[in-house]
Amino acid sequence: MNKSEPPDLSRRLNLLYEEMDKKGWDAAVITNRGNLRFLTDFRLNRSATAILVIPQAGQALFLVARLDLERAKKECPYINTIPFPEDTPSYLDALREILSPAKVKTLAVDSSLLYVQAKFLKDLLPNVELLSIDETLLRMRAIKDKEEIERLRRSAKIADEAMQYVLERAEEGKSELELVGLAKMIIAQKGGEDESFEPFLMSGDRAWLPQRVATEKKLCQGELIVFDMGAVFKGYCSDMTRTFALGGLSKEQKKLFQVALEAHDKAIQAIRPGVEAQYVDRVARSYIEESGYGPYFPHLTGHGLGLEIHELPIIDKGNSTRLEEGMVLTIEPGIYLPGIGAARIEDMVLITREGAELLTHTPRNLI
Amino acid sequence: MNKSEPPDLSRRLNLLYEEMDKKGWDAAVITNRGNLRFLTDFRLNRSATAILVIPQAGQALFLVARLDLERAKKECPYINTIPFPEDTPSYLDALREILSPAKVKTLAVDSSLLYVQAKFLKDLLPNVELLSIDETLLRMRAIKDKEEIERLRRSAKIADEAMQYVLERAEEGKSELELVGLAKMIIAQKGGEDESFEPFLMSGDRAWLPQRVATEKKLCQGELIVFDMGAVFKGYCSDMTRTFALGGLSKEQKKLFQVALEAHDKAIQAIRPGVEAQYVDRVARSYIEESGYGPYFPHLTGHGLGLEIHELPIIDKGNSTRLEEGMVLTIEPGIYLPGIGAARIEDMVLITREGAELLTHTPRNLI
Repeated sequence: MNKSEPPDLSRRLNLLYEEMDKKGWDAAVITNRGNLRFLTDFRLNRSATAILVIPQAGQALFLVARLDLERAKKECPYINTIPFPEDTPSYLDALREILSPAKVKTLAVDSSLLYVQAKFLKDLLPNVELLSIDETLLRMRAIKDKEEIERLRRSAKIADEAMQYVLERAEEGKSELELVGLAKMIIAQKGGEDESFEPFLMSGDRAWLPQRVATEKKLCQGELIVFDMGAVFKGYCSDMTRTFALGGLSKEQKKLFQVALEAHDKAIQAIRPGVEAQYVDRVARSYIEESGYGPYFPHLTGHGLGLEIHELPIIDKGNSTRLEEGMVLTIEPGIYLPGIGAARIEDMVLITREGAELLTHTPRNLI
Repeated sequence: MNKSEPPDLSRRLNLLYEEMDKKGWDAAVITNRGNLRFLTDFRLNRSATAILVIPQAGQALFLVARLDLERAKKECPYINTIPFPEDTPSYLDALREILSPAKVKTLAVDSSLLYVQAKFLKDLLPNVELLSIDETLLRMRAIKDKEEIERLRRSAKIADEAMQYVLERAEEGKSELELVGLAKMIIAQKGGEDESFEPFLMSGDRAWLPQRVATEKKLCQGELIVFDMGAVFKGYCSDMTRTFALGGLSKEQKKLFQVALEAHDKAIQAIRPGVEAQYVDRVARSYIEESGYGPYFPHLTGHGLGLEIHELPIIDKGNSTRLEEGMVLTIEPGIYLPGIGAARIEDMVLITREGAELLTHTPRNLI
């Protein structure tokens, strides 16, 4: 249970070569962190940069910051790794050796590519056409393999542990940030590399703005408190939300919570392979609308997740993508009622042959 | 001491308008998080996006994600704020109303601009010339005002508290990640919005790679342990490193530490207004070279910091920038000796009329 197999990187790379061949792309330049991890399994510090260059006719090359070179060589012995100097404008110079104008007419790039990087590439390859590789890789990443599901389970378990630790210690006078700090501590203690996003715990008056950060505001009775957080385990993100209170809620606040919870439950029950993403969204959204809170549910019902916190499929209006076995996604309908408060319950599910298996298990009731 | 005045945003914006006028820029599009915070003081969640558009002839417009709109209106009443939908390809459409091809021939952008954003801008403004605003804003940000210095002091104090908490609890059998988790907890408890970067605690065999992440490896006697971390307080970053051990060090490991510490002390003593950045670097670097570790100091001696963890001035070879009163920077020479270990001491200093005032105070000795 604690061990993780190395992912099957050569299978992933070969699939990508096949796609490149099919589409006639001469090379690909990958800068998105999720794509980089998917293809190399190398863990980058949150602020480090790296570039993976994949020529259609040749070996992939992994460019990492000079300070990451020795570790990358050690951890990714199967890939050709070269360094670039950090903090200098010439960090892209290594690409001159790899990409030749004679060979590269079409270059696939992901949407993390910076303008300055694109400009360098266009100067280097004067007549190159830059094409988007986003969808190709996002589709490959949407159906999780066995190893990915195992990592996502561990990541969800770590989030559950952190959430429960916080819920047990929430009390009047503690600040939003203080509780976030406890969650971060538990995530790290349980082996989480990082949080999957900046956790936000929002309470009372500002929750319905919604406030997407945690502040020094102290928790009080009589307010709905929403805590949205997740861990990263070996690159894979978890994401969950619980809504709780320290007592003293009004009838309307309790109703708000109940409607959000029921919308969440109904959406999860609607999940099975073959249904459209928008159907699951409609189940949650129409229940909230019928309950009179339609205008106060301003976001999507859920989203896929994996190496990034938002991946395919997006569970929202107008998305006719059909759900498939092996997808992992969140369900998180929420209601934000000015003057009253906010409520959102979010869980992670794995789509199985029969329906949806919950990966997060912290009790959902309003404490 | 606990209170922070709002920064003087109109002064900053007016300075920028003057620069734009001088350079003949018709408008600016700001996407860099440090620049955005400098000009709006709005706190964005780590993964949220926003864009500030500044037409030379007209009012600045702040585009934020739909979910951030109400909070931005509340917290930035002095700026015209409009929403864009998240997670859709059309999130830039609002720019069509603001930037007209007839008026905007030169557009200043920062290097955080994505290729897809630049492409949108070039389609919208067919003959536009995109120019870099980086240096203009980095120079404005290099000399800190009173309020910025106050925030940096608080940020450094929070980092000190977290570092000391960790040093007191470091013991055999605890993992690198576990100690990082304790630091994150204290940062949040003391009112830090976030960590200023992913903290890295690296111990033993992998420290000299260097490993720029923390892992589940447990701490042992006989190894040098390097912990590099910082907080964010109201947007402002702190950054500090301590090297410690749990006993059982060899003579060579102790010498390594001593040389790194002395190089650090000498560099700090060399700081005063008017000296060149490269002079401070040379003081640290030549001491390490004379001690025989020259090839094992592979990075810069220090860097400015503020709203981002790396700002001007860079304290490195070849930089003839003269230090000025009001700059805040780090000094962090390090030695990474294969098979032996790594040592780095890093402090934050404020440049004063007389020299350098230390902002971080945790004892530097090898425990």
